[in-house]
Amino acid sequence: MNVSKAAVIGGGVIGAGWVARLIENSIPVAIYDPDPEAARKMQAVLDNAERANARLTMAPRASKGPVTFAGSIADAVAGADWIVEAVPEQLPLKQRVYGEIEKAASKDAIIASSTSGILPSDLQQDMAHPGRLLVAHPFNPVYLVPAVEVVAGKQTARDSVEAAMAFLATLGMKPVEVRKEIEAFVADRLLEAMWRESLWLVKDGVCTTQELDDIVRYGFGLRMAQMGQFETYRVAGGEAGMRHFMAQFGPCLSWPWTRLTDVPEFNDELVDLIAAQSDAQSGQHSIRELERIRDDNLVAILQALKLNDWGAGQTLAAYEKKLFDAGTGQEAEPDLSQPIVTLRRAVPADWTDYNNHMNEARYLQAFADAGDALLRMVGVNADYVASTGSYFTVETHIRHLAEVRALEPIFATTQILEAKGKRLHVFHRLYHENGTLLATGEQMYLHVDLKTRSASEPAEQVTEAIAKIAISHANLPRPDGAGRAVGQPR
Amino acid sequence: MNVSKAAVIGGGVIGAGWVARLIENSIPVAIYDPDPEAARKMQAVLDNAERANARLTMAPRASKGPVTFAGSIADAVAGADWIVEAVPEQLPLKQRVYGEIEKAASKDAIIASSTSGILPSDLQQDMAHPGRLLVAHPFNPVYLVPAVEVVAGKQTARDSVEAAMAFLATLGMKPVEVRKEIEAFVADRLLEAMWRESLWLVKDGVCTTQELDDIVRYGFGLRMAQMGQFETYRVAGGEAGMRHFMAQFGPCLSWPWTRLTDVPEFNDELVDLIAAQSDAQSGQHSIRELERIRDDNLVAILQALKLNDWGAGQTLAAYEKKLFDAGTGQEAEPDLSQPIVTLRRAVPADWTDYNNHMNEARYLQAFADAGDALLRMVGVNADYVASTGSYFTVETHIRHLAEVRALEPIFATTQILEAKGKRLHVFHRLYHENGTLLATGEQMYLHVDLKTRSASEPAEQVTEAIAKIAISHANLPRPDGAGRAVGQPR
Repeated sequence: MNVSKAAVIGGGVIGAGWVARLIENSIPVAIYDPDPEAARKMQAVLDNAERANARLTMAPRASKGPVTFAGSIADAVAGADWIVEAVPEQLPLKQRVYGEIEKAASKDAIIASSTSGILPSDLQQDMAHPGRLLVAHPFNPVYLVPAVEVVAGKQTARDSVEAAMAFLATLGMKPVEVRKEIEAFVADRLLEAMWRESLWLVKDGVCTTQELDDIVRYGFGLRMAQMGQFETYRVAGGEAGMRHFMAQFGPCLSWPWTRLTDVPEFNDELVDLIAAQSDAQSGQHSIRELERIRDDNLVAILQALKLNDWGAGQTLAAYEKKLFDAGTGQEAEPDLSQPIVTLRRAVPADWTDYNNHMNEARYLQAFADAGDALLRMVGVNADYVASTGSYFTVETHIRHLAEVRALEPIFATTQILEAKGKRLHVFHRLYHENGTLLATGEQMYLHVDLKTRSASEPAEQVTEAIAKIAISHANLPRPDGAGRAVGQPR
Repeated sequence: MNVSKAAVIGGGVIGAGWVARLIENSIPVAIYDPDPEAARKMQAVLDNAERANARLTMAPRASKGPVTFAGSIADAVAGADWIVEAVPEQLPLKQRVYGEIEKAASKDAIIASSTSGILPSDLQQDMAHPGRLLVAHPFNPVYLVPAVEVVAGKQTARDSVEAAMAFLATLGMKPVEVRKEIEAFVADRLLEAMWRESLWLVKDGVCTTQELDDIVRYGFGLRMAQMGQFETYRVAGGEAGMRHFMAQFGPCLSWPWTRLTDVPEFNDELVDLIAAQSDAQSGQHSIRELERIRDDNLVAILQALKLNDWGAGQTLAAYEKKLFDAGTGQEAEPDLSQPIVTLRRAVPADWTDYNNHMNEARYLQAFADAGDALLRMVGVNADYVASTGSYFTVETHIRHLAEVRALEPIFATTQILEAKGKRLHVFHRLYHENGTLLATGEQMYLHVDLKTRSASEPAEQVTEAIAKIAISHANLPRPDGAGRAVGQPR
């Protein structure tokens, strides 16, 4: 489905998270929320999302979709193809909202409820066009966590489910369809089970909220970021695998390992106990600070998993590939009469060091990435590397001219100084988007046969593509700084 | 407590994980396991642990403790200060093992059971010296996951608990004491709650094991690697925090959001269903492969959290600091008549690139780390940076002379070429431990006042410390490659 406009009804934490994810993908979003504070609260979430997205991908970001606040549900949903309902968890309220939506929305618009647990069949029961209602249950923060549970009701059209799954994937999400309608779906049943046990443990004085959280985040929570419970236990079974694990731990099912056959009474005393311990644990940070800490951690974890091409890191990699393929920020037909723009990005937070600026080694990383972009441009792509060869850097000279801080926008240009057989002599310049020259990098590359790991001639089409640029760049003035040795007087 | 020898009784996944963590911290370990396959299985875990530890810390690793296989429990525990019991979860078996241990072990030795859920009071009831038995329940893989639940029984001495907590922290772990004895302690109660619900969800056909695992690892599992359930929900409550969250979701406790008031029958049909789905999900990888995938992910996640100085990343940072302070691999009194050894480590897996060798930018990172080590040596430490200033690199020249692959051992030396006021001219050499020169790096550093971000004179004690090295290094021959420009003929 092609979403040219989205509407989000309800601007709380989840609604705002949806807005952030949608606009990051260039989709215009209209919001309706009767809370007079809605715009301020929304902006706080959008600011955090901007901060996280600036560091999330290595690829150039798409231009952001515009955000508007509508005066009514009807205004918000008019012309929208994708309508998110993220109002409080009360069935009659949600049903009233659908009534309002249906008066003004296109018949083909999909209505995606963010409910944590109400059955879609119940949500859609009074609708005029129930076939387009489904649940798309995301995880907070919606702009970073990829998973989204998609649940159809009895009257939901198969087409709606498929369109929604495909659309959510284009947003860099990981939609998982829940096969059967069930209250709380999958994730919240698992979390609810843990939560009930957690409340007992704190109520019974076995641990505090801080101690319980530490056991999670220093313990099994680390594993859950990359393998779920079944795969983790398969590994825990050792060489004998899942059956062994089941045989070993199956009997525990009948042991008194849980108080879940009983439910703690939800009363003021319980709320006071938990809230007081939570204040002691986390009260030194505001909620906004905690959100930023969480976001920084999630960005770093997603990037870590991307390095390993696993789980949520794969989702991020696929999303980045889409951005790279879209070519935003890169010139399709570069002007060969000038140094070529070979890099455009924000400085990732983890590129900085104890001096609170981009670490010196990352200057070379930026030049390495710029060099890779030039090489891809002349045909040294993954296929070429697999079949023929690659270029290795044999010598580098860098002038570190100015500092740059995390999240600042930078770009690089690359100029070919000389191309001769196996040798390729290039000169990179790294700039802040404001025009400040941050560094220059002069490099000698050598073409190498990756089987023998020794110097070899590049393939003819690569030599030709390089020559075309080199001839054009021969007319450029010799760059300031080229040919310098360290410490040489100017 | 000072542990000069440890014993591990039981060489399964958990026992082997303990061995890996202990020897990584230079502690000799004697193992007893009657399984004739024990040595082979142990070695597979130790190989994986070596692979993970080689990339885990930036600090020089300590020398490894030796591993021996003992012919009896008595031989294994003789002279040991720390005795791990990691035999199958059967109370009579464990009690028999303690009987054997007590016949030969020192009275002061602590016996730490790895049990997942048996009460320490039950474990210790027949012991001659029950005061030294406690539970230290770790998480698989023990050599990477920091959390360990420490649980005292009725007869456990307070001193034993405190000694164990302190010792476990020196191993780079995060011990959390569980305040009250309770079956399955904290973590396994939470996991058991999830597990029971998971089994229902798969049994009822709501999702497959793969779908459930995806909802975890693409969803809330990402969050649990860095914040536990209480802190996560505090954030989810938005500006109103924990009380708001409790008020909003408290009523769910009485909703049908779980089947936990009922327990799935553990029978062959359930085992077959789960095992078959698990095979479909993960069967393309062997258990050893899955372990390596998991370990790579955990290493990357721990490093990611270290960047953000949070949770398990803080534990890793503290452990690294200990290794740095111990100065292992570094010369306490460097021989100033030679270039100084400023770096010693293995090439981390994520330092390599699509050419399957250390990426060019990481050569500069190695030199940056070497330069930082030199600077700390002359007094430019965290206090100096906070109060006075730092050195910024203004120019770099690198000759990339040879390739090196992931996990290979490398070291660097640094020579001062000239020190003059604000300027410090250095020359690094990067070697493989086999003596191959991999690269040279020539750099000009400039002393900077971090408040004005402009050049300034270093403090007198720094100038003096640098001069002492520079005078000595003035007698060294000028390094091959110093003063070179890129592409200059030799």
